[in-house]
Amino acid sequence: MSQTIPVPSVPAPDIIRCAYMEIVVTDLKKSRDFYVGVLDLQVTEEDETTVYLRSMEEFIHHNLVLRQGPVAAVSAFSYRVRSPEEVDAAEAYFRELGCRVERKKNGFVRGIGDSVRVQDPLGFPYEFFYDVEHVERLAWRYDLYSPGALVRLDHFNQVTPDVPKAVDYMENLGFKVTEDIQDAEGTVYASWMRRKSTVHDTAMTGGDGPRMHHVAFATHEKHNILAICDKLGALRLSDTIERGPGRHGVSNAFYLYLRDPDGHRIEIYTQDYYTGDPDNPRVTWDVHDNQRRDWWGNPVVPSWYTDASTVLDLDGNPVSLTQRTDDSEMDVTIGADGFSYTRREDATTDVDEHSGAGDGEDEFKLGHQL
Amino acid sequence: MSQTIPVPSVPAPDIIRCAYMEIVVTDLKKSRDFYVGVLDLQVTEEDETTVYLRSMEEFIHHNLVLRQGPVAAVSAFSYRVRSPEEVDAAEAYFRELGCRVERKKNGFVRGIGDSVRVQDPLGFPYEFFYDVEHVERLAWRYDLYSPGALVRLDHFNQVTPDVPKAVDYMENLGFKVTEDIQDAEGTVYASWMRRKSTVHDTAMTGGDGPRMHHVAFATHEKHNILAICDKLGALRLSDTIERGPGRHGVSNAFYLYLRDPDGHRIEIYTQDYYTGDPDNPRVTWDVHDNQRRDWWGNPVVPSWYTDASTVLDLDGNPVSLTQRTDDSEMDVTIGADGFSYTRREDATTDVDEHSGAGDGEDEFKLGHQL
Amino acid sequence: MSQTIPVPSVPAPDIIRCAYMEIVVTDLKKSRDFYVGVLDLQVTEEDETTVYLRSMEEFIHHNLVLRQGPVAAVSAFSYRVRSPEEVDAAEAYFRELGCRVERKKNGFVRGIGDSVRVQDPLGFPYEFFYDVEHVERLAWRYDLYSPGALVRLDHFNQVTPDVPKAVDYMENLGFKVTEDIQDAEGTVYASWMRRKSTVHDTAMTGGDGPRMHHVAFATHEKHNILAICDKLGALRLSDTIERGPGRHGVSNAFYLYLRDPDGHRIEIYTQDYYTGDPDNPRVTWDVHDNQRRDWWGNPVVPSWYTDASTVLDLDGNPVSLTQRTDDSEMDVTIGADGFSYTRREDATTDVDEHSGAGDGEDEFKLGHQL
Amino acid sequence: MSQTIPVPSVPAPDIIRCAYMEIVVTDLKKSRDFYVGVLDLQVTEEDETTVYLRSMEEFIHHNLVLRQGPVAAVSAFSYRVRSPEEVDAAEAYFRELGCRVERKKNGFVRGIGDSVRVQDPLGFPYEFFYDVEHVERLAWRYDLYSPGALVRLDHFNQVTPDVPKAVDYMENLGFKVTEDIQDAEGTVYASWMRRKSTVHDTAMTGGDGPRMHHVAFATHEKHNILAICDKLGALRLSDTIERGPGRHGVSNAFYLYLRDPDGHRIEIYTQDYYTGDPDNPRVTWDVHDNQRRDWWGNPVVPSWYTDASTVLDLDGNPVSLTQRTDDSEMDVTIGADGFSYTRREDATTDVDEHSGAGDGEDEFKLGHQL
Repeated sequence: MSQTIPVPSVPAPDIIRCAYMEIVVTDLKKSRDFYVGVLDLQVTEEDETTVYLRSMEEFIHHNLVLRQGPVAAVSAFSYRVRSPEEVDAAEAYFRELGCRVERKKNGFVRGIGDSVRVQDPLGFPYEFFYDVEHVERLAWRYDLYSPGALVRLDHFNQVTPDVPKAVDYMENLGFKVTEDIQDAEGTVYASWMRRKSTVHDTAMTGGDGPRMHHVAFATHEKHNILAICDKLGALRLSDTIERGPGRHGVSNAFYLYLRDPDGHRIEIYTQDYYTGDPDNPRVTWDVHDNQRRDWWGNPVVPSWYTDASTVLDLDGNPVSLTQRTDDSEMDVTIGADGFSYTRREDATTDVDEHSGAGDGEDEFKLGHQL
Repeated sequence: MSQTIPVPSVPAPDIIRCAYMEIVVTDLKKSRDFYVGVLDLQVTEEDETTVYLRSMEEFIHHNLVLRQGPVAAVSAFSYRVRSPEEVDAAEAYFRELGCRVERKKNGFVRGIGDSVRVQDPLGFPYEFFYDVEHVERLAWRYDLYSPGALVRLDHFNQVTPDVPKAVDYMENLGFKVTEDIQDAEGTVYASWMRRKSTVHDTAMTGGDGPRMHHVAFATHEKHNILAICDKLGALRLSDTIERGPGRHGVSNAFYLYLRDPDGHRIEIYTQDYYTGDPDNPRVTWDVHDNQRRDWWGNPVVPSWYTDASTVLDLDGNPVSLTQRTDDSEMDVTIGADGFSYTRREDATTDVDEHSGAGDGEDEFKLGHQL
Repeated sequence: MSQTIPVPSVPAPDIIRCAYMEIVVTDLKKSRDFYVGVLDLQVTEEDETTVYLRSMEEFIHHNLVLRQGPVAAVSAFSYRVRSPEEVDAAEAYFRELGCRVERKKNGFVRGIGDSVRVQDPLGFPYEFFYDVEHVERLAWRYDLYSPGALVRLDHFNQVTPDVPKAVDYMENLGFKVTEDIQDAEGTVYASWMRRKSTVHDTAMTGGDGPRMHHVAFATHEKHNILAICDKLGALRLSDTIERGPGRHGVSNAFYLYLRDPDGHRIEIYTQDYYTGDPDNPRVTWDVHDNQRRDWWGNPVVPSWYTDASTVLDLDGNPVSLTQRTDDSEMDVTIGADGFSYTRREDATTDVDEHSGAGDGEDEFKLGHQL
Repeated sequence: MSQTIPVPSVPAPDIIRCAYMEIVVTDLKKSRDFYVGVLDLQVTEEDETTVYLRSMEEFIHHNLVLRQGPVAAVSAFSYRVRSPEEVDAAEAYFRELGCRVERKKNGFVRGIGDSVRVQDPLGFPYEFFYDVEHVERLAWRYDLYSPGALVRLDHFNQVTPDVPKAVDYMENLGFKVTEDIQDAEGTVYASWMRRKSTVHDTAMTGGDGPRMHHVAFATHEKHNILAICDKLGALRLSDTIERGPGRHGVSNAFYLYLRDPDGHRIEIYTQDYYTGDPDNPRVTWDVHDNQRRDWWGNPVVPSWYTDASTVLDLDGNPVSLTQRTDDSEMDVTIGADGFSYTRREDATTDVDEHSGAGDGEDEFKLGHQL
């Protein structure tokens, strides 16, 4: 497959966590209505072209930047590093990789100081910073909580054509794989990787890339996620619910996927598990296990596999896509050419016929869908 | 359409509530594993051919009877009446209707005394009783609660071809309509009716009938329903989840539909609203409103519309079906001939094209499904 | 003890449910801030002296009326009856009892039509009405729900010196006892009574009376009640929390008691059980059972026993109190003269010494409190 | 104050997290009934004298060891370090501190390999290990979850007379303070410190020490904690509930304190916040702020301040206590000599009189307690 990304001679920056995403939206008012009016993210500050938003438990300036622009896209996946020196380390690391690198002492966005932005070897606009304005952590401000309050930025999810190549690159950058989806032949369909002690700070999902699959915010409890759905129904915006709510197999978290007014995908997520031990056991899921992406076996809608957001290079131009050449998870699991099983022993019988979900009982779950 | 059911000259029996359902299962051990081992219903008593089950807050002998038999079916929808005399009233009422009526002073099943069973004018095996053995109400026995504990029998749901005819008959029997689904032409697709002060004791769903659509048990909270899904996943029984979990539009309740080992449909249900005032406002939903059956706009799987359980006559023989001649809810809402809208204003534009969900945003919810 | 209240020759009115309470508050703005700003009750309408509030699932005009006045008090416990004729029945019933009775065709408050108000034989201002303005049932308006949304008026609670006398009177009025607290000598300390199918529409609590002990609103789930506490903490109003949150023994409900700016006690309540069967088993609790009022054995604060609101007669004057002569629940359960047990077998050993909670393990729960 | 603990010249071991506690219980069967039968911790293995328990999401051998012994006590606070070499680092570090140090290549308990145990400068039996037997992470085993399932060991809490001295020592050992309780004069009453990215791995609570204040396990959601209370009520063990449930001010977590059959204190805890950034803001609470330990202002029972478990030295003998000479948090906050305020502005008025909670409204919360 494609060439491996080399390992720089200099150490990788010490990344603490995914910190914020900057997205370009085509109608700022509409997007603000969605993120503030519907999802109740807190506005740290805003002006005519930009809104800076944070979750209830955050103490840094923002977790999400909405910027008015001509084409819906993602302009930064931003990570916080452990110290000011680690921004230097990031700059050196990506320069050695031969990437396009930009450094701004005063930051690319408000509230953030000295930062480096790169177009990484996979094509994604990554940012690294330490210096940041502290703002009030609203954790105790229960007078401001809504029924579906978002309390933390949890993770990013990226679409890339060659998952093993991406994982190799991310491991060199200091990430650890916690879970992945593979098949018996060793094809890797997706991989979850962490810096902080949760299941992930970002995941690599196989597909034409680079694209942004989703950005995820955490709630305290599952009922908070259900409350978001209920509110969307009340606002007659239920068609912004793309998938879920449900329980993931991978990560064991409770989830919901929404699509914002530009189609950017937002996950609402709660209750994965602690992964901070160095020997935290990796969980590998069989791509044909029908409970891997939804523990309850509810179908993944095709758009969830096919749609993702454009990412921008450092000049603000859309990055062109490279096609995935490995098998597609959607193709191998649903439809005429795929199969999925609820019980492994059922799979072995069904494999020859590639019928999977076609037997009586679970027709209502899969067979009738496509 | 079909002839109206006459109103007897004698008063209708004073029904308190739906009390239990008796179902025939083809493999008692398997069914017991499902209802007791998975759903944690409490066994009041059992023998080689029958298991008597109740929910945590029940004080009468049972809410569900599983009886071993050759063909999966329903042998009784059983209601409790207000006094022993009301059993006489029930007998007189259905005799005047010309129905087949059986009376047993010692009851048709254990734990229940003087009862009358009828094959009602719609073809359903209805039972009425007052006398019942009291057993321990386990409401305070939190040492016995499981994460998904079922606390009450909530309602039945019946499939019948002519909903207005069925509603008319049920209103005469003393039921009150709380909600229904109609279209602009006045076709009634389903109707919810109560005796106790909840949204329903039973509902009439349009389709070939008489058949049993589902029997529903209540939990205390929404997370209890999610816990049942999680457990089914852990047991690799996620393919028993037919639909949900989700929020109903009709009833405003949180729901989940399961299929037992014989395919009998069980709903798990929580948090509808008080309906006990005589002028409780009826809610009529437009059949094309995509949030009527799932407030979050998640699709109803076709099997949910098409599948239902056979009911038995008083001799234990399957009752033959009468076809629905009115429009089918499934046909008018999904697929090439149907349409659904999330916002009423969107509907008016789309009607001509019968495309409904076919516009951009919500394709992932509906357009790709069928 | 005191004389029994006679049974009128005319039938009692057919009461459906407790419907609203009218309370007099001394600072309307402060009270509005509490009920609307903190508890998020919905304003149906308001003017300079009066605020009409309802819960999320209500369809009648209001469940609570705040009226500006000189002295904090309760001016009406209002019940809805089944039909206009039942208002006549109420008038006749209380006239025969020799009570002061007032009838207003246009109602005593906005939104309510033909009503009768009486000062009942126990001294309480009771109202009965059928005619009421319907307003939007906000049950589906999840855009308006707060984390602690109140969804129904659940019940009243009244303080009266002679509980058996009060129960006898209420049973004649058509109420049914669901639970009570007694001791081995047959002293009745409190009794819960229902019309609708919950544990109560009102309760009679032994003490100097007539006074209003509390009015209770229901939430959907337990976390809603916790959210109210969290919000009160955030607003630095935690000292309005008088007792709880906790689980009741009686009623099995989850509860919280607040005190409004005038000291009126509000209960927030969720998840009692269905009581609608005529032979619903009555639960009698031993007054010395330390789990009767809090299933977790957490202490009842003395103010909860001693404080209650003044009630007004039909001229708006405070009703003078009659002292309780039976034992006081507080006295017999806590402090030097009382005892409580967690396990009945412990009680029998401890009774002689009246030490109850004085043995090692549970000192932290009771022994140190008083 | 007492002498500062010196800083060794060798680096502190790289601690990942609190991993398990070993406690001595006087009746193993009774303790097993409590931790397994009531709290549903999972048994990894057991023999006649020892039971090894873990939480649902744990993958190392155990989080709690119950060992039969003559006197209730704690024999180890055990931390996991990042690598085998860090066990060497721990040994060197504490040897330089002049502590009693023991090293066992095969571990002090089953399932754990090479370990070092020390009696640390504060007198506590601390253990450090890396090598551990992996066992099944039961996170996805929802068939095993109970309504109150414990999913993680969260933290320890230690009683020590001189909190600033202890904090200084812990900071040198690599811990970071996240929150503390102080007064205007700078007296420190308690301090919370973390290695993993939660509010704490351990806390130092001022009092006669060394003693173990509590060990805490996490649940997923708040209702899980309520379910434990409900179950204790059903088992007539409500007198094992010492304090709570409630919301902490410090940590913002929802909590419950239980006492096991030997009086060892167990906290059940959920929903604190992410603290993993190096500049995570420290929160300092005023000792007179009545919401610091319970956000809802519910009183802390005196036993919670006064009781704690004996700790053992490396020979298994109880470590003798050093008295706290700084002010006691209980004394300065409750009773005749203390004061607490709900609103800071109220405090300034009340300080002179030392009456604090003595004014009208909140008497029911504090004034009547002591």
